[in-house]
Amino acid sequence: MFIGFSEAESFLRNCRDAVIITHQNPDGDCIGAGFGLKDILEQLGIRSRVICHDEFPSPRYDFITSVGQGEDFEPQTVIAVDIADVKLMGKYADIYGDKVQLCIDHHISNKNYAEKTLLRGNATAACEVIYDLAEYMGVKITKHCATCLYTGIATDSGCFKYDCTTPRAHEIAADMMRRYDINFARINRYMFDVKSEGRMRLESKVVELMETYLGGRLNIIAVTKEIADAMGVSMDELEGFAPMTIQLEQSEVGIFIRQRDNDYKCSFRSANDVNVSEICQSLGGGGHAKAAGCSMTGELEEIKKSLVETVERALSR
Amino acid sequence: MFIGFSEAESFLRNCRDAVIITHQNPDGDCIGAGFGLKDILEQLGIRSRVICHDEFPSPRYDFITSVGQGEDFEPQTVIAVDIADVKLMGKYADIYGDKVQLCIDHHISNKNYAEKTLLRGNATAACEVIYDLAEYMGVKITKHCATCLYTGIATDSGCFKYDCTTPRAHEIAADMMRRYDINFARINRYMFDVKSEGRMRLESKVVELMETYLGGRLNIIAVTKEIADAMGVSMDELEGFAPMTIQLEQSEVGIFIRQRDNDYKCSFRSANDVNVSEICQSLGGGGHAKAAGCSMTGELEEIKKSLVETVERALSR
Repeated sequence: MFIGFSEAESFLRNCRDAVIITHQNPDGDCIGAGFGLKDILEQLGIRSRVICHDEFPSPRYDFITSVGQGEDFEPQTVIAVDIADVKLMGKYADIYGDKVQLCIDHHISNKNYAEKTLLRGNATAACEVIYDLAEYMGVKITKHCATCLYTGIATDSGCFKYDCTTPRAHEIAADMMRRYDINFARINRYMFDVKSEGRMRLESKVVELMETYLGGRLNIIAVTKEIADAMGVSMDELEGFAPMTIQLEQSEVGIFIRQRDNDYKCSFRSANDVNVSEICQSLGGGGHAKAAGCSMTGELEEIKKSLVETVERALSR
Repeated sequence: MFIGFSEAESFLRNCRDAVIITHQNPDGDCIGAGFGLKDILEQLGIRSRVICHDEFPSPRYDFITSVGQGEDFEPQTVIAVDIADVKLMGKYADIYGDKVQLCIDHHISNKNYAEKTLLRGNATAACEVIYDLAEYMGVKITKHCATCLYTGIATDSGCFKYDCTTPRAHEIAADMMRRYDINFARINRYMFDVKSEGRMRLESKVVELMETYLGGRLNIIAVTKEIADAMGVSMDELEGFAPMTIQLEQSEVGIFIRQRDNDYKCSFRSANDVNVSEICQSLGGGGHAKAAGCSMTGELEEIKKSLVETVERALSR
């Protein structure tokens, strides 16, 4: 059942304790939302614990998680943040999947799996929803909480760069700067500018693999196991390269391809108006208009040829 | 003489025409401020022309400048935007340097060279000052004007990423999104994400030149003429690489060195608390706390050795 702020407030004020579930492969928004909500519940005298299928990336998110996830206890209340679908809970799907009493989310694709869902499908981030909920409730948040919530808004919006950024996200950022004196420049440096030396050198190697099609409107980077072995990197390390495929001036669509055991994982990005979600759906995958994915089997050269044709058709529409 | 919004308003309302000077090596803020102000004057029925020592970079800023700089005429009024010092006018310093009646700026270092100066030294960008002036005056700005002013705020703040971002910058962005429906995501893509294929490949070559000192706290990239020749690039193309020197996790200070005819140009960046302006001042240069520069003569290896020692002393303070 979808609920509004008023019902979410009574729910939170009436719970005695809570476990807060964040999604697997945790990012800035679910980590910020989880720990931000934990801070808010603390203000209300409610103990809570933040859990995740995976470890929270360290040291990247230490400035959020170093307060601790909270002690272990048998919770009476189960809350999910930034989780559109039970299966994104990983190992916790079995334990808590059908016991979520409150879900706070901003994904329009939310499966409505929880007893009550506070969904704002047009919000930049789950952290934006939680900030507005705290405002609604009149809870005075801490500087650490503001830091958590700013991080989620910044990371989900690409530091206010992408389409999904709402005017409200900017207003909240202004508010946090004025009222809580958050060290936003340092957060942004960690989230957006800093990389490891290995990552920096890897990026310059990956650039060399870029291939240009359709007069520059399509770029493809394909990393086979053989190439990854030669570069000395695991496939896990090849996360986050998809945006690189649309950084050239003429780019309309970019595809980052990684070989897996039995298939190729294809991550699509759209620079402007092409809806890559539609393209990926036609190939058995899915996603958002500007970022989507699918998997393909067969010979790499055949796959590329077919992808180029598919994108060419989409561009001519 | 420094003036406030009220006096700036009467000045603008009483001028019959204006030439608007932007600084040499024009960037998003002075271009946005120049063309934004031109739009505002048009609303008031005042003809104006935007001028610059250099050509406005094309196609990068075409979305701003394609309305035209305005026809040539003998101006009665001279306005400077985003110009802290007459010498930044380049060839226009001789013609207009002592004739500037109004300067609108946000540089705390403004030399107060104009008859009247509307200075907000804590503003993110000159465009922030101009937006607030238009608000103060009750001028209904156009979507093109909002696009110009957003661009200046975004580029000077690194898309709201850096220390210099004010809460007001966020509020203005929110306002522009709500009221003028600007295509901010496309602006940001052009300003921050898009690069030419040559630039992309050059970056991956420059990364290879990075040297690490002081346990990773100092990184230096030095490009000699010999190296530039081997890479097939001119020294002009080596603009904008300084931030790369502080992108590693442990970085505190980064120095990008380029060989010139008779010396080496050293661009410093600080990741956190080291004041590189102080370092550069001690070496005969200057700048801001987080971005400063100086020039050095002698043998490159000796220069590097001396810079490492200087930075080591600064870090131990």
